[in-house]
Parts: sequence; structure tokens; C-alpha cells
Amino acid sequence: MKTIRLESGILDENDRIADENERTLRSRGVVTVNLMGSPGAGKTSLLEMTAVKLGGSVRWAVIEGDIEGSLDARRLERLGVPVVQINTSGACHLDAHMVREGLRCLDLDSIELLFVENVGNLVCPAEFRIGESRKVMVLSTTEGEDKPRKYPLMFRESDLMVLSKADLLPHLDLDLDALLSAVSAVSPDLSVMQVSSRSGEGAGQWIGWLRECLG
Amino acid sequence: MKTIRLESGILDENDRIADENERTLRSRGVVTVNLMGSPGAGKTSLLEMTAVKLGGSVRWAVIEGDIEGSLDARRLERLGVPVVQINTSGACHLDAHMVREGLRCLDLDSIELLFVENVGNLVCPAEFRIGESRKVMVLSTTEGEDKPRKYPLMFRESDLMVLSKADLLPHLDLDLDALLSAVSAVSPDLSVMQVSSRSGEGAGQWIGWLRECLG
Repeated sequence: MKTIRLESGILDENDRIADENERTLRSRGVVTVNLMGSPGAGKTSLLEMTAVKLGGSVRWAVIEGDIEGSLDARRLERLGVPVVQINTSGACHLDAHMVREGLRCLDLDSIELLFVENVGNLVCPAEFRIGESRKVMVLSTTEGEDKPRKYPLMFRESDLMVLSKADLLPHLDLDLDALLSAVSAVSPDLSVMQVSSRSGEGAGQWIGWLRECLG
Repeated sequence: MKTIRLESGILDENDRIADENERTLRSRGVVTVNLMGSPGAGKTSLLEMTAVKLGGSVRWAVIEGDIEGSLDARRLERLGVPVVQINTSGACHLDAHMVREGLRCLDLDSIELLFVENVGNLVCPAEFRIGESRKVMVLSTTEGEDKPRKYPLMFRESDLMVLSKADLLPHLDLDLDALLSAVSAVSPDLSVMQVSSRSGEGAGQWIGWLRECLG
């Protein structure tokens, strides 16, 4: 009982700070994408591809959420993307408070797009608003067609699902129709986009979606 | 501050019930394996292969942990494995209390081996003892070589790492040596076993390891 009361207390406090982050970001005209998915789903690879495809046409930055280390941040910095690293010290998700600290390290007037790459986890990040404009989840083709039914909250909360590692489809037993049916059953309005950061498949559609968000 | 205090309270209470589970299981001579890993890493597929390879030679059962539904339980029941389903109602891991409830639904005198398939999550399950004899983590070849450094606790807590989906290696850019070095750096004593539940590669080694646990 104690747990449940505290949990809802934490979520109320998180929502309050998420609202504050949202106001801060909106007032500076920054579109913010909360990028979520399992470990190894391909979130950083998607951002690497995004860096190459966007080139200098959009001013953007990344907040990297990791339990420990800064491996992903370094991958993106190598491509010239400004990155702020947040280490969660064991926590399995980013919350609005951590992201508020991250925002303080960024020059928000110099960017129009901000990615927040969440900790790799298909469960907990979906529970915590951070003040984002859009939630995007990455599901890899290697994760199987049953994931929407097993981890429904992430699918319900997201505005877009990027089905990553599309280049591996010929080597997998994935039943793509079954996966798409499961997505529709759990989250009827969720858009799905098939992408391979390795081959570049779907890159145009992804960049188009981002440009649409930027208005 | 409040969170941290409660968290340690939760973990103390969890440890108390985990000890109780451990005593219960030991007194019946049941070896219990806590099977952990990311969503889609191949935990259930490993258990399906185990069912086929063990045949009737070992009396065993499975406790399935899922946020919602019973898809994995049904996969295993189809193979004749007795399964108890635990739905965590949103929680991202099993805890000792949930497993205690599961144990009450099993005839412990009729089994010698119990698998507890945890919720798909590379983070939180590693924090909660459930009374297991061994912790086994499944990491898929598709998850990348950086995972030990990004999610170290799971690697440190586990007795064995099953590197699953080994049949996909020729189609991936995975740097296997870099992965194994990262595993050693984070958890020097962790045994690693390369397995493909699809091709059967490594099955003999896996079944051998299980038989050794059974003594």
C-alpha cells in the first residue's frame, strides 16, 4: 500500500516538472522527441542515421540517458551533434527532473529539435512524461511479434513506432503481419515505419516525419 | 530522499521473502533458475529448446512473469511443461513476494528444476532476489557489444550469460571479441555460452550446465 501511494506521489511530482519542461521547450520553439525502446533496439543508430541525413539543415541536440557511461553520447558527438549526458545512477528510466537538469546544460535558443534518448527499457520509460512533444518507440525486427501484447503501455503511449533493423527481415522468422495486427489491437492509432539504419531503408520517411513535426 | 529510503525498505523486505523462498525450495531439493534478459532476447525460445532436449529426463516446471497476458506460458504448455503464470500488473520485474505466490501453485515435491522467466528487462530484475539458486541472463547477438558497459548490474549478478541467436551472427556487424572483452571487464567471472535455439547450436553445452546444477 505504501508503495502505491508513493508511486502516485512520484508520478504527480513528475507530471508537475514535465509540464514545466514542456512550457520551457515550447516557449523556445523546440520540438522534443522522447526516444524509447529495449536495450539494443537501435535508438542510437537511428540518431546516427538522422545526423547523416539531416546534415546541417536542422539545428538539433540530444540528451542521452544511460544508467552508466557515455558510449552513445560519444557516438553522436563524433558526428558533430551536441549531446548532454545524463547518468541515472541505476534508475531504469529518465524522469522529468533529470531532463530539467539536462535542459539547463543546453542553449535552447540555438536549437529547433531535441531528442531525448531514454534508457533502454520497454517498460518503465513509458510511465514517465518528461515534457516531450512526441514519444517515439523503436522496436527491432529481432524482438518478435508478441511484444505489443506483452508490453502494451509503451505502444499505447507512443506517437510513432519505428520498426528498426528492417534489413534483417530475410534472416528472421518474424511474422510481420502478426506483429502489425498486434500493434493495431493494442494501439489502433499508432503509426508504424519500417527503417534500417544500416541500409538506409525508410530514412526518407523518417526524416519526412521529423520535418512535419518541425512544422 | 524519501524514494531512496523506501527503496531500501522494499529491498530489505524483498530479501526477507527471498530467503524464505530459498529455504522452501532447498528443503524440497528444487534447483531454481531466475532467467532474465531484454524483451525479445530469446528467453522463452531457450525454454522451448530446453523442453525438447530434456524430454522426460528431468521433472521441471516454469513460473512465467509477464506484465500482461500469458503468451509465453501457452508456448511452454504446448510442449507439456507445467507453467504458473504471474501477471505483474505493470511492474517491470518479478519480486520475491510474487514468486512466493507462484510457488504456492506448484507441487514442489514433484519437480527437481524450476525456471522463473522474469519480465523482459535488462535493468530492474537484476535488483530483486527471488530465492533462486542461479541467475542466468540471456543476451541476444542483435543487442550489440556495448550492453555490459551500459547495463552492468545484470552482468555482475548473473552466474551464466547465454548469448542467444548465435545463428544470426553472419548477418550482423557484432564485434564478438569486443562483446566478450566488455563482459570480462564488467564481470570477470561470468561464464558465457553461445546458443541458437533455432539451429540447436550450443544446446548440448546448455543442457550440460543444467545437469551440473542438478548435481
